[in-house]
Amino acid sequence: MTTPTIEAPLFDTVAFVGIGLIGASLSLAIRRHGLARRTLATSRHQETLDTALRLGIVDAASTDLSEVVKDADLVMICVPVGACGAVAKAIAPYLKPGAIVSDVGSVKCTVIRDVMPHLPKGVAFVPGHPLAGTEFSGPEAGFAELFEQRWCVLTPLPETPPAALEKVAAMWRGVGSNVDTLDPEHHDRVLAITSHLPHLIAYTIVGTATDLGTDLKQEVIKYSASGFRDFTRIAASDPVMWRDIFLNNREAVLEILQRFTEDLTALQRAIRRGEGDTLETHFTRTRAIRRGIVDAKQA
Amino acid sequence: MTTPTIEAPLFDTVAFVGIGLIGASLSLAIRRHGLARRTLATSRHQETLDTALRLGIVDAASTDLSEVVKDADLVMICVPVGACGAVAKAIAPYLKPGAIVSDVGSVKCTVIRDVMPHLPKGVAFVPGHPLAGTEFSGPEAGFAELFEQRWCVLTPLPETPPAALEKVAAMWRGVGSNVDTLDPEHHDRVLAITSHLPHLIAYTIVGTATDLGTDLKQEVIKYSASGFRDFTRIAASDPVMWRDIFLNNREAVLEILQRFTEDLTALQRAIRRGEGDTLETHFTRTRAIRRGIVDAKQA
Repeated sequence: MTTPTIEAPLFDTVAFVGIGLIGASLSLAIRRHGLARRTLATSRHQETLDTALRLGIVDAASTDLSEVVKDADLVMICVPVGACGAVAKAIAPYLKPGAIVSDVGSVKCTVIRDVMPHLPKGVAFVPGHPLAGTEFSGPEAGFAELFEQRWCVLTPLPETPPAALEKVAAMWRGVGSNVDTLDPEHHDRVLAITSHLPHLIAYTIVGTATDLGTDLKQEVIKYSASGFRDFTRIAASDPVMWRDIFLNNREAVLEILQRFTEDLTALQRAIRRGEGDTLETHFTRTRAIRRGIVDAKQA
Repeated sequence: MTTPTIEAPLFDTVAFVGIGLIGASLSLAIRRHGLARRTLATSRHQETLDTALRLGIVDAASTDLSEVVKDADLVMICVPVGACGAVAKAIAPYLKPGAIVSDVGSVKCTVIRDVMPHLPKGVAFVPGHPLAGTEFSGPEAGFAELFEQRWCVLTPLPETPPAALEKVAAMWRGVGSNVDTLDPEHHDRVLAITSHLPHLIAYTIVGTATDLGTDLKQEVIKYSASGFRDFTRIAASDPVMWRDIFLNNREAVLEILQRFTEDLTALQRAIRRGEGDTLETHFTRTRAIRRGIVDAKQA
């Protein structure tokens, strides 16, 4: 007769600072996959915590962050990137020795710059970014499957202990993600192209349509399925989160935006001058990237 | 005892000039819904016609367009908008009296300008534009459900006979579309915003990424799910079709592009100067349009 092995969960206590779409989804996924004994949440807004408790997203919650982080083995900072530094400063006095701090921000260099100086010796920082999300916000938008089959990029520092990196990586793999590591500067440059510029463009084009006269705007909504609709979904994302991303990845975004504007000006010129060959050549080249994405099974 | 009524189909013979994604899908849908006794196709390319015949898209096909259009009650011009005038000129001598000519182009003013002068007296022209498509091209990409629950916009002229307009509208309703009529200039202005500008932007941003160094490009493909991917799908659309759209809706596209560029420059400036309030206000306003689309059940 054999006794089944009861595996201890990866973490005893995971504390979330901020419990919006990403924090709530991660807590739900951690619970579903048994990766922690319990999850806790803190937020400045009691209403958000009430929602998280009512929906069974965490085991307990408090607006008093010292209560929530003091026993945590892993503290996940899940707030807009511009607030990460202030959160690190606020939680630092209560972190227990050996605790791991991680985050989910779309920008890594400024988050590292803002968070690291506050963390006490003996606390590990594992900067991270799950490439997942929806156009919805708040704990009620969370769902446990959000990270399945998606990339999670970790950007460890020279001082990040390998054991801490591995535990955070194991958690992301445990919720279904593919984990990759990148240099923080490189991460910010890649994301400026794949995510930040597309969001800026989508916000712009939808804003341009918002300024149209009422009749035309109604027709744009009615006939949105012809291309515009995809942009509106992207442009419905959380405004504060995206404000902070652009302010914190300024250099990389402005650099790629400059290239984009040059390319757009060249196409505009070709349209004005009626240069069909230039347009056709350009439109043919772009198909190759789509084929790359289809081949990489990311389509 | 009652005898079931056998309804005659809407048309006896429908001829397609050009049998790519749109023509093939419409032919399949017409056949599925019994809207014509037979459908025919002509193309400059025998290979395209062979594919259409092999896939059972039409009943017969020939590269000799006189053979295909001479008995047609409805001739659907399904070629890139820049080729519509030449097609009209070529088919004109063979059209039978009482025939209806229609098209599916994304631009209406220049198509009307190019087609109308060639059509003989007694032949009706019903300009049309189904707001449907995919990023794939050719007859093998066609499917009968493409137009279901989608808009088809007809832009009749003062000289379009109401009976011809109604027959073409009945066909589009028969394949599952919602039919609307618009003034041609107005159609072109609305589509410049909802479709042409989004495609131009998508082509541009994917082109910008295409010019990146090899390593960075590979990572853009790998992490494309974070926003970029939606643009690549749009930018994989048929190059010749889109070249013609931009050349033929030049004024409306350049006008909305000018507004877009101004708005993008304002956001760029706000990022450079670190004006978070400007960004947040803009990103909040754009959510209203998305709500409009969701409320209009177009999401």
